[in-house]
Amino acid sequence: MNFPSKLVENAVNEIAKLPSIGKKTALRLVLHLLKENELNTELLADALVNLRRNIRYCKECHSISDQEVCSVCKSHHRERELICVVEDTKDVLAIENTNHYRGLYHVLGGILSPIHGIGPDQLNIESLLSRLSLGEVKEIILALPSTMDGETTSFYLAKKIKESGVKISSIARGIPLGSDLEYMDEMTIGRSIVRRIAYE
Amino acid sequence: MNFPSKLVENAVNEIAKLPSIGKKTALRLVLHLLKENELNTELLADALVNLRRNIRYCKECHSISDQEVCSVCKSHHRERELICVVEDTKDVLAIENTNHYRGLYHVLGGILSPIHGIGPDQLNIESLLSRLSLGEVKEIILALPSTMDGETTSFYLAKKIKESGVKISSIARGIPLGSDLEYMDEMTIGRSIVRRIAYE
Repeated sequence: MNFPSKLVENAVNEIAKLPSIGKKTALRLVLHLLKENELNTELLADALVNLRRNIRYCKECHSISDQEVCSVCKSHHRERELICVVEDTKDVLAIENTNHYRGLYHVLGGILSPIHGIGPDQLNIESLLSRLSLGEVKEIILALPSTMDGETTSFYLAKKIKESGVKISSIARGIPLGSDLEYMDEMTIGRSIVRRIAYE
Repeated sequence: MNFPSKLVENAVNEIAKLPSIGKKTALRLVLHLLKENELNTELLADALVNLRRNIRYCKECHSISDQEVCSVCKSHHRERELICVVEDTKDVLAIENTNHYRGLYHVLGGILSPIHGIGPDQLNIESLLSRLSLGEVKEIILALPSTMDGETTSFYLAKKIKESGVKISSIARGIPLGSDLEYMDEMTIGRSIVRRIAYE
């Protein structure tokens, strides 16, 4: 791709480092910013730098938060004997949006991945175990991805948690509501039959 | 949408102002930046602010350029009697990438649009006419969009340019190479028949 200017090339290259944004889209965004008021670009740049510099994580559950302890962990209306373990803050948001869960969370900050060199020490596993050791928690719900790495992480955690005697469960896997069987992969269909649930 | 932090909300809102990026994509980008090294975010922010502050436009053709006069306008290998009039720098890039055009360009910086309050004075029309008045240019190729506003602009320019006696042409409209007739709109097919060209 030919660029009319070093400044444009530099901006395009930086934007194209973001996930799912290619150089063509990046160039379109750059030309958009050039047409807009200069203030807009500065607001955008400030917001990004501010975000990265001042972001804080809840010291209980490690989710993104403005305060030392996030609103979920601080709330008196949540079931404090239930902790849902997720990979990322975006999973917390996804579950919160359902309004179906009233327990607490624990954000691992990733999953075990030997290929990417991520071992147990890089994840928030120690702090999860010390939360359990306080004796308040009765059940852990594992809501990690159903990929190879995700399953490995679930297995590792389950082994660690078992020592503390807390009940462990996992989110249900099966056919999504409203989905047609014919468009589902065989793994999901197979598992939904093997792990069928009693009709109420 | 619920945000875990004001910083995240602010960054998402600023990113979502960009064209074709919604709040969900913006949140994904924000969470990506938070996972990456802080330096990456600062490089991105700096590139954007630098771009917007220091961008320059060629004083001849008004295309984006690092120098006072862009490489196309400065080149001795271009046909200086030919000027292609386009809406935007991205059109210059698109035509340059074809390697089929050896003339010069003139970037209008937009098209006439009464609805958006863009009149002839907001566009680089005066400078086009003064380039013509030097007598070097023999032909103007209009390569503006085939929308209502684009056609109006072409019509307006053609009237202005006629006074200077320079030949005026327009890029060919028709069926794109490799396209099937059955998937084309009627306007394009109709025009491609009315304005058919002699078989060589």
